[in-house]
Amino acid sequence: MPLSASRLVPLWGYDDPRGRLTSLEEGREVPFTVRRVYLLHDVPEEALRGGHAHKALHQVVLAAAGSFTLRLDDGIQHESFTLATPRLGLYIGPGLWRTLESFSPGTVALVLASAAYDEGDYIRDYADFQRFVGVPVTSDGPPAAPPVAP
Amino acid sequence: MPLSASRLVPLWGYDDPRGRLTSLEEGREVPFTVRRVYLLHDVPEEALRGGHAHKALHQVVLAAAGSFTLRLDDGIQHESFTLATPRLGLYIGPGLWRTLESFSPGTVALVLASAAYDEGDYIRDYADFQRFVGVPVTSDGPPAAPPVAP
Repeated sequence: MPLSASRLVPLWGYDDPRGRLTSLEEGREVPFTVRRVYLLHDVPEEALRGGHAHKALHQVVLAAAGSFTLRLDDGIQHESFTLATPRLGLYIGPGLWRTLESFSPGTVALVLASAAYDEGDYIRDYADFQRFVGVPVTSDGPPAAPPVAP
Repeated sequence: MPLSASRLVPLWGYDDPRGRLTSLEEGREVPFTVRRVYLLHDVPEEALRGGHAHKALHQVVLAAAGSFTLRLDDGIQHESFTLATPRLGLYIGPGLWRTLESFSPGTVALVLASAAYDEGDYIRDYADFQRFVGVPVTSDGPPAAPPVAP
């Protein structure tokens, strides 16, 4: 199963002497209606965030400030992305295990999501995730992250 | 006419040793469906942004990083807000002239908007704005900002 449910999305922007504007619109850069927006901020450099997959949620993630590394895993293979500019979004569809790490000081990760927070949409155990996506359950996948809040 | 079409919105958040999460959801902190999200970043400290009103657009604005001052004007009176934390949003309804200034270095202003960009929704001349909101046209209002991009 390829990592087909993710893709980098170059974002529209406008620069002038008053600074820079970067924009995401439904139906253009965002292939869903945005029902929730959240920010990760004040993240320690050594922190590991994510550690789960979603059953149905669609997201677009970007670095509003600073930089971080986002790793996606489809149950068999994985791919890492370094997000370091507001001008690049990463679309993440359902069924991908994600971890976020290596947050530089001052980083703000911005996430646009297709639904309100719903604990029932989370898969927080890696073996459950492999079963969900229909691949053989292995013992060497990423350990489940400790229980986390929305 | 009071500045009734704006209000500060405390935002939901969750903090743990892995950092801070701040969230906005439709129907809770955001009283509209989000169709566009944009960021202002790399804004020089001396820059003046905004300088317009909207006919129909609803927005929620916050400081994702850093701080800035947002001034709202209803055609008669004005009020200034300093936004300096991701945990506080400012809802702005239609018919308010806004200016943004005093961006601290590294500031990222995040704006959630109820519609895609539409130049026809902008009022970029202050006298036109006063006519739009039905107050006497004065000559001492803020000068119209130079033409700006979306």
